[in-house]
Amino acid sequence: MKTRDVRELVRQMTLEEKASLLSGRDFWTTKPIERLGIPSIMMTDGPHGLRKQRADADNLGLFDSVPATCFPTAAALASSWDRDLIRQVGEALGEECQAEDLAILLGPGANIKRSPLCGRNFEYFSEDPYLSSEMAANHILGVQSQGVGTSLKHYAANNQEHRRMSVDAVVDERTLREIYLASFEGAVRQAQPWTVMCSYNKVNGTYASEHPELLTTILKEEWGHEGFVVSDWGAVNDRAAGVAAGLELEMPGSGGINDKKVVEAVRSGALPEAALDAAVERLLAIILRAADSRKPGATYDADAHHRLARKAAGESMVLLRNEDGALPLAKSGRIAVIGELAVKPRYQGGGSSHVNPTRLDHPLEEIRRSVGDAEVVYAQGYALARDAADDGLVEEALQAAASADAAVIFAGLPESWESEGFDRTHLRMPDNQQRLIEAVTGVQKRVIVVLANGSPVEMPWLDSVKAVLEAYLGGQAMGGAVADVLFGDVNPSGKLAETFPKKLSDNPSHLNFPGEGDRVEYREGLFVGYRYYDAKEMEVLFPFGHGLSYTTFAYEKIEIDRERMKDDETAEVRVTIANTGQRAGKEVVQLYVRDRESTVIRPVKELKGFAKVELQPGERKTVTFRLDKRAFAYWEPKIHDWRVESGEFDILVGASSRDIRLEATLYVESTVSLSWEIHRNTLIGDLLADERTAPFVKELLQKHSPFGQAAQSQNEEVAAMFQAFLKYMPLRNIVRFNPDGSDLDKLIAELNRRVSAAS
Amino acid sequence: MKTRDVRELVRQMTLEEKASLLSGRDFWTTKPIERLGIPSIMMTDGPHGLRKQRADADNLGLFDSVPATCFPTAAALASSWDRDLIRQVGEALGEECQAEDLAILLGPGANIKRSPLCGRNFEYFSEDPYLSSEMAANHILGVQSQGVGTSLKHYAANNQEHRRMSVDAVVDERTLREIYLASFEGAVRQAQPWTVMCSYNKVNGTYASEHPELLTTILKEEWGHEGFVVSDWGAVNDRAAGVAAGLELEMPGSGGINDKKVVEAVRSGALPEAALDAAVERLLAIILRAADSRKPGATYDADAHHRLARKAAGESMVLLRNEDGALPLAKSGRIAVIGELAVKPRYQGGGSSHVNPTRLDHPLEEIRRSVGDAEVVYAQGYALARDAADDGLVEEALQAAASADAAVIFAGLPESWESEGFDRTHLRMPDNQQRLIEAVTGVQKRVIVVLANGSPVEMPWLDSVKAVLEAYLGGQAMGGAVADVLFGDVNPSGKLAETFPKKLSDNPSHLNFPGEGDRVEYREGLFVGYRYYDAKEMEVLFPFGHGLSYTTFAYEKIEIDRERMKDDETAEVRVTIANTGQRAGKEVVQLYVRDRESTVIRPVKELKGFAKVELQPGERKTVTFRLDKRAFAYWEPKIHDWRVESGEFDILVGASSRDIRLEATLYVESTVSLSWEIHRNTLIGDLLADERTAPFVKELLQKHSPFGQAAQSQNEEVAAMFQAFLKYMPLRNIVRFNPDGSDLDKLIAELNRRVSAAS
Repeated sequence: MKTRDVRELVRQMTLEEKASLLSGRDFWTTKPIERLGIPSIMMTDGPHGLRKQRADADNLGLFDSVPATCFPTAAALASSWDRDLIRQVGEALGEECQAEDLAILLGPGANIKRSPLCGRNFEYFSEDPYLSSEMAANHILGVQSQGVGTSLKHYAANNQEHRRMSVDAVVDERTLREIYLASFEGAVRQAQPWTVMCSYNKVNGTYASEHPELLTTILKEEWGHEGFVVSDWGAVNDRAAGVAAGLELEMPGSGGINDKKVVEAVRSGALPEAALDAAVERLLAIILRAADSRKPGATYDADAHHRLARKAAGESMVLLRNEDGALPLAKSGRIAVIGELAVKPRYQGGGSSHVNPTRLDHPLEEIRRSVGDAEVVYAQGYALARDAADDGLVEEALQAAASADAAVIFAGLPESWESEGFDRTHLRMPDNQQRLIEAVTGVQKRVIVVLANGSPVEMPWLDSVKAVLEAYLGGQAMGGAVADVLFGDVNPSGKLAETFPKKLSDNPSHLNFPGEGDRVEYREGLFVGYRYYDAKEMEVLFPFGHGLSYTTFAYEKIEIDRERMKDDETAEVRVTIANTGQRAGKEVVQLYVRDRESTVIRPVKELKGFAKVELQPGERKTVTFRLDKRAFAYWEPKIHDWRVESGEFDILVGASSRDIRLEATLYVESTVSLSWEIHRNTLIGDLLADERTAPFVKELLQKHSPFGQAAQSQNEEVAAMFQAFLKYMPLRNIVRFNPDGSDLDKLIAELNRRVSAAS
Repeated sequence: MKTRDVRELVRQMTLEEKASLLSGRDFWTTKPIERLGIPSIMMTDGPHGLRKQRADADNLGLFDSVPATCFPTAAALASSWDRDLIRQVGEALGEECQAEDLAILLGPGANIKRSPLCGRNFEYFSEDPYLSSEMAANHILGVQSQGVGTSLKHYAANNQEHRRMSVDAVVDERTLREIYLASFEGAVRQAQPWTVMCSYNKVNGTYASEHPELLTTILKEEWGHEGFVVSDWGAVNDRAAGVAAGLELEMPGSGGINDKKVVEAVRSGALPEAALDAAVERLLAIILRAADSRKPGATYDADAHHRLARKAAGESMVLLRNEDGALPLAKSGRIAVIGELAVKPRYQGGGSSHVNPTRLDHPLEEIRRSVGDAEVVYAQGYALARDAADDGLVEEALQAAASADAAVIFAGLPESWESEGFDRTHLRMPDNQQRLIEAVTGVQKRVIVVLANGSPVEMPWLDSVKAVLEAYLGGQAMGGAVADVLFGDVNPSGKLAETFPKKLSDNPSHLNFPGEGDRVEYREGLFVGYRYYDAKEMEVLFPFGHGLSYTTFAYEKIEIDRERMKDDETAEVRVTIANTGQRAGKEVVQLYVRDRESTVIRPVKELKGFAKVELQPGERKTVTFRLDKRAFAYWEPKIHDWRVESGEFDILVGASSRDIRLEATLYVESTVSLSWEIHRNTLIGDLLADERTAPFVKELLQKHSPFGQAAQSQNEEVAAMFQAFLKYMPLRNIVRFNPDGSDLDKLIAELNRRVSAAS
């Protein structure tokens, strides 16, 4: 059905029908209007798998859904830094939706990991908006290629679970634009998600569900979003205000209460009917597109999806540490596998994203399946359900470890510690796991720790183990993928999409998380994740972008196709890397941009490009990055737009944010100049620094100001001090100190005249 | 002349006369009105000495003033933590003012050291408002005891020199009250300075010189300031607005321009004449008091003041490090004294506080005078005027050091690096000094570094030297005082009044200093100085309150005279300490308070008491601290007042902020309760946590809410998650999800009724 038809359809609807369409029929479906042939469509939770309620379950039965492939969570997938891979996963998710007759899969989540404590971080991609938006865009493109919609969520500044339905996130304009919104912006512009889901919280005082600037000005008008906005489930506060602000669909239904309020608001004139019509048009366009895209009788290949889940998990794991070539393990000798997580794997997080998997790989079994001739002994080591160590279990683990050639400890966080609905309060692992690891390193030199967790943990035991493999929450095939990586059947290629701090208090939001009462101030501003650790020159446990391989890569050459560009042009950066080791492998080449000098506060460097490159031993490839204005720009609140400050920018290319291997420099010239209005409090130093005003002001000072004269003193100390004083002195004061008569207003007019004449 | 007379006098003045009195006659004096017998009074720069212009100098000749005793700068004096000492210094300053016919000495400076880079930090006391206000109060009490006025400056939030006349300091209400204003508040309430000097900058958008809230509501009305406010020299922007806001005196004069504007403003009705009269009354009261307090023909004992300056410097120096008993030095053998600062001492900072000293001790000479039998060899080591090392000077120093029993290196910052008018941009010492220290430690094991600087420096060489004595800018007798401490004639007892960070980027203001353009946001909020390093659990070079002695002290006992108190009562804390070493010495006993649990963001601990105690070997004393509401309170923006949250507070007593030796606990009960208005977005968790609403809400949930029912599920995981969901769910949503009909408005009314009935 075309736009024209949608308009016609709206014209045929009664006010009540229109209002009714703006809220769900129940928990998961929209309302049909049979007389007009408008169907109901069904949505369900994502993002890394379908959580479709069984027909016989109540609405809230989170743990009882139709089986679906549980792919790696977003935290894991983002660590792949692989756009194609996440698109393939999206396609698979789309196929499963078609098979289950689902129109919209709720996800992906593009919220920035402001704090490692956020309970829902496992559903999000990164602390970096560029990486996050690229991942989100490709997820969306994948799902939607199958005729299934997505819901980019939770828009916006929903970066904690603590008081999530009432908290007001107070974020300055630049930070909102450069960090929190940028993560959504890229995904909307590139991938046009059918829907965007507004979040529960307030943003700068207004509920996201009734925020005209976020929902209409920015999302629809600036970014050109064509779909509709759906409320997070229960996020609606004032429904009529929401409709006016640009929230099309309320979920779940309100039992008709809010539909009536919308009708009343239109009748009373509080809500223009045109706003209601626009909302219904957007809704209908998607509902009809969904209906047209249905593939009745579609099925999917569960085995193939499981294999994809295993591949995705393998590409996502991050080899954090690997001393003395501890990994990969040989498929011979005796291997101790320790830890209850080896048999009860943790592979997804709690809450609305909880999937009932089609099958489940157990790490221990998969290891046994992989090793061929090697002997595998297992010890439980700890009880997941408890925090306190059990001496018997530890003793058993020590015996297993002592007699083995290597010990692989499966550790991580229990599901009850990480979930939608609440945040962690610390970064520790359970006490019994910490103590187990410490004990095992006392009897076994080759200890490998495999971590299953959705977000960083502290690792006080790090120095005493040989290797750490961060598996994140890797989905239903994580067990097999871990075996693949441990034994070298897959060469690890994941890189951290977030910084692992040394301790909780190091993290940038620490002093202001989760806020006071219903207010959380994002006082760290732009300095989120590596932007903070870089600026604070702080040591971290593992930096953003870090991840090891079983082979080695040489960064050989960087070339930029120009030395200067205007900010409306683009530059091409070509980087050559080679596999200098003995195994095939993949490297994530990362490109960061650093503004050498700036009048505004800027991070030390920011990620502006990345590419995952597969290389055979000895092979070299050249990857190309294209940089446009946004790679150099900051958000300028004075003009409410992106702006580049003319000057030199360093292009830094490397294997992690703290392992820069190649550098080059580019001069970028701004095509936008900010206006300058001179007033009584304009500083002399600013006037002397600008060629349009300097000669005039210099003369004025010499002739009329005792300060100007003192700044010319023969006494060097006196001259230096008065030069410093003058620099920060307002125009009003050179008149003040010169009572012989210059007229300040005339002086200001003359200076402004000179500025505009020269501009 | 009494208040009554002042009113009468004002009645006799013409409008023009009144307006004219509100600005200076010239740079340093007020206008006389001869027909009414109103004299002119003279002010001059302080704070640690008089900078009275010679009669023949021009106004701006900063380096050419009448000789006066240069006492240690505020940065040094604060490190004495000695209220009596600073009062004695104040008395001496007052005597000198009487001798020079000065009515008001401009100082002390109570600005908080937000950043170690601030160029004027040497003129300020501390990063802690309590310590700063105690020091300021005693300075004021000392000076004013001599019938000479003071000017407590620079009010307020003037914490940088960068763009100081145009920058807008953006500070939240709590931070302003608890940190930046608290430093002034204590001094005003305790010591009633004759004048307070408003600063150049804006505070939250309004110039301090025309800020009604700062100048009138807070200073005059809340704190009860009885004197007048004087502008910092050139701080006036809009004169009439300033008069209305509470700025009585503009300095220096504006050549009559602003007097006319005031007259016009009164004539036009823009400024009520009553406001002008009130300003003139305040001015006259002080002018007349100053006139009445004159002691014609007064003189002072320059020798005695020099001795006091030496004593004050000795009490202020901080022994930062002393390994293997490197200090004190024996008065025998061979001592190498190295560094140009030993013969050209740096003892004060640049700018308006620059004093022309009555005499000047040279460290090298004073060392030679002290040592008796020891041989002292000197090497210049570096050239102060240059940054680059000179191989010849280093070689000479190495020869001197290699053949000596110990090497004392005089190091620090050149005067041109630290001054009013500009901020530092890094914390490094000059390159040639760094290299000299490193070289000398290669040939001499017993290296002692004596530092002369107004603010912290980085010390990359710290681990390789045996001792570090921080002499700050210790005034004209610093040379002698250094000799006293080096050879043990004075046992060092200074403690740092500020944290020394390991590196610049560690400091809390780093990401927001000195701001962008004319705006600096105090985003670190309350977390200034040790409040930040504590909360961030960050290692520092030397913590706040740190300082060593040649003897040792045992903290033996802490007792509180009660277990509980109401916040309108006081508690007495008694602490017993003993000198357990072989020398007489002084210890600064520090008392910090920690709120164990709080619903608002609070620092880990805050200084709320200190006492300097002198003890002979083997002696013990008990010191008493009295704690009132302010020791436990935070500023509550909801009621715009101080408030204590009922609960347990730890009383921590120790030798530094990171060397707590004794702890006790006190329960403080609030007498102020905040009102609670339940609304549609009040969270279920908050209702369940309050005994006034919990039973009713519990029943409601069980009967009417599927969420409430799910939270009771037999499945533990499901129950836990729904309990978490419910906790952060707004009241509106339990009705939303329960469409069978509860009326939300009625429910809210009922809950509010229960709350008020129980309150």
